[in-house]
Amino acid sequence: MEFFQVKTVRQVKEIIRGFAPLGTEDVGLEDALGRVLAADVRVQEDQPPCDRSAMDGYAVRAKDTFGASEGSPGLLDVTGEILMGEKPSLSVKTGAAVKIPTGGVLPAGADAVVMVEHTQIMDEHTIQVYRTVAPGENVMQRGEDLKAGERIIEQGLILRPQELGLLALVGSTHVAVYRRPRVGIISSGDELVPVDATPTIGQLRNTNSYTAAALTLLAHALPQPLGIVKDDLDALREKLIAGLQTCDVVAVSGGSSVGTRDLTIQVIESIPDAEVLVHGVAVSPGKPTILARAGTKLIWGLPGHQVSAMVIYMTLVIPSLWRLAGRRDWEGPYGWPLRALAARNIPSAQGREDYVRVSLHEEDGTLIATPLFGKSGVISTMVKGDGLLIIPMDAEGVQEGEEVEVWPF
Amino acid sequence: MEFFQVKTVRQVKEIIRGFAPLGTEDVGLEDALGRVLAADVRVQEDQPPCDRSAMDGYAVRAKDTFGASEGSPGLLDVTGEILMGEKPSLSVKTGAAVKIPTGGVLPAGADAVVMVEHTQIMDEHTIQVYRTVAPGENVMQRGEDLKAGERIIEQGLILRPQELGLLALVGSTHVAVYRRPRVGIISSGDELVPVDATPTIGQLRNTNSYTAAALTLLAHALPQPLGIVKDDLDALREKLIAGLQTCDVVAVSGGSSVGTRDLTIQVIESIPDAEVLVHGVAVSPGKPTILARAGTKLIWGLPGHQVSAMVIYMTLVIPSLWRLAGRRDWEGPYGWPLRALAARNIPSAQGREDYVRVSLHEEDGTLIATPLFGKSGVISTMVKGDGLLIIPMDAEGVQEGEEVEVWPF
Repeated sequence: MEFFQVKTVRQVKEIIRGFAPLGTEDVGLEDALGRVLAADVRVQEDQPPCDRSAMDGYAVRAKDTFGASEGSPGLLDVTGEILMGEKPSLSVKTGAAVKIPTGGVLPAGADAVVMVEHTQIMDEHTIQVYRTVAPGENVMQRGEDLKAGERIIEQGLILRPQELGLLALVGSTHVAVYRRPRVGIISSGDELVPVDATPTIGQLRNTNSYTAAALTLLAHALPQPLGIVKDDLDALREKLIAGLQTCDVVAVSGGSSVGTRDLTIQVIESIPDAEVLVHGVAVSPGKPTILARAGTKLIWGLPGHQVSAMVIYMTLVIPSLWRLAGRRDWEGPYGWPLRALAARNIPSAQGREDYVRVSLHEEDGTLIATPLFGKSGVISTMVKGDGLLIIPMDAEGVQEGEEVEVWPF
Repeated sequence: MEFFQVKTVRQVKEIIRGFAPLGTEDVGLEDALGRVLAADVRVQEDQPPCDRSAMDGYAVRAKDTFGASEGSPGLLDVTGEILMGEKPSLSVKTGAAVKIPTGGVLPAGADAVVMVEHTQIMDEHTIQVYRTVAPGENVMQRGEDLKAGERIIEQGLILRPQELGLLALVGSTHVAVYRRPRVGIISSGDELVPVDATPTIGQLRNTNSYTAAALTLLAHALPQPLGIVKDDLDALREKLIAGLQTCDVVAVSGGSSVGTRDLTIQVIESIPDAEVLVHGVAVSPGKPTILARAGTKLIWGLPGHQVSAMVIYMTLVIPSLWRLAGRRDWEGPYGWPLRALAARNIPSAQGREDYVRVSLHEEDGTLIATPLFGKSGVISTMVKGDGLLIIPMDAEGVQEGEEVEVWPF
């Protein structure tokens, strides 16, 4: 029998790199969470645009407070008050103080703010000052947050709440982002029945389309479940072609194992502009994975086993969605891995990358990763799991007590 | 002047614990991602419900393969084939083999599967077997994934993709989840203008409602932005009462600093069934935070400073939303912290919890956390940041090179 020409994960990612990000679109700021910025954002003017008070208190000339202390307070004339949101028309003269709220614009002449807690009102026009303030103290300087011309968010970064706040601050009501990939999800298999059906012995409810749709949503892409097809060339071909018409990516689960792989491969090869790029990846689980292209669109063939399909979706499909979505750090796995100690030996064959589901717990301040062994169809190992432990290709496994990296899921 | 009667974070969380989760509702499985399960889910029947092949190959009696090897293959009669999705009517006799696909139901008589790679077809009715298989080998046993009656997902857990897959597997088309809290978001301040306005000197665009709405979405709750109000008792009161009518939680940013706190407190106290529970928390930034209740509803008064407001939202408001959402691990911060080494000394006062924004980078396999200092209005520290370093109340700060915990954001 013919064996797969397996590719390494690195080779698969180089192939994914060959796909260009999708086009861009403008979205309102309120819809931009999780979207990927399509162009650098630069700030037009200093933020804040003027010196502001960072405290409730009195705007003063710092030198007028020099030497002031609890034992020897200074006296200043209160010559006015700054209101929030107003541009001050008055200025602070030597020996004077002007009442100012947090965020109030520092009036001309003043270079520092005495906190209200360090003053006492003597009469309508006079305060005592109990502390010396340095020039600039309790003042948010013009441009302290952002300087005009500064690039504040880079193209290709994902927009978090703080980036939206920053965009609001500089007046961006809309923002240019990459289009989200639309992902068609097909479950192939003669044994599959819909979730609301009662399977007979030998049948199985369609789970992969739910997990794939949910993972797609978490990746900020748009799932389009396309239902179940029988392991039949014409039926799968028709469904796949329909999916390619409306989607940027189509993921077919099932139909890629040794038993049915001819089917998926035959279907892909029967589509005029389609080309199989990967057939078999040096990973476990998920070796029989297929990646093909049809024009600018991607076709993924995922294992039928629930856990294998999920693991490949997390480790390969999602990076490809992020690549299309223009994300700078598309290669994933996203974020910072946790460091933990392996609770026991975990065997692994050299020459493949192993994805081991682990549960995590803390013992005396140390994180412990316990592998959840189970056949690749055992979805309960994912449910009990907290993350994936990745054993690199060149490693022969992990020793009990060895430090490992875990990507939480 | 009157000082806040500050509460500790622990005390605030005890107060939050006093609020009961909201009611429950049924949602379709396709809408359940990120929702919180309102009742334990138990499995009704074993999964898989019968023994299945875990490989493409031949169902056999294991003892018929004993002694088979490359050098000395065994011979078996092929007496039939199992098709996917079908309940087998045939059985496997001594000396016989039945072709079976991955996932196929193991026929009566068979107790193991020989992988197809370890066989060779001799003629239409005979195969050679090159490996010995043990009883149960390459078989997914009935109940191996889940046993009937087993609790598969606990009430109060958040539904991830794998839980949706598991629910699909057992035929749950709908699932009982807690209602998501609806969060009204009010920005108070005379200086605030909408994002599409051009602020004059002294004015500031409303950023807190965007960051709060985005953080609310990430917490799987429902934001309802209620706009800007002036620092005016009647205006704020009217807006707050309107928000309480449609929302479970109302968050007011601004109006809680020393300068304007009388306003927010006065407004809350003027609402018949409202009661201030917290006025000041031993944290930095965010000390002037307010928590009140109006019947079963929560009112948060957040600092006006962008960064303080975000940090308090992340560390206190979101736990309160999770509490209302029925989440078991509502106290947060959610997930597993990263361990990193502090890049420099970070001072902190005893008696308060400090939230320091840090950026992360890796050096020789070690994660380094660099504090991003800046006044609490400097949102660029959040944008450059990768997470929050929490310095506990009883610590006086962190030494350069000390191991710290960072919660990524």
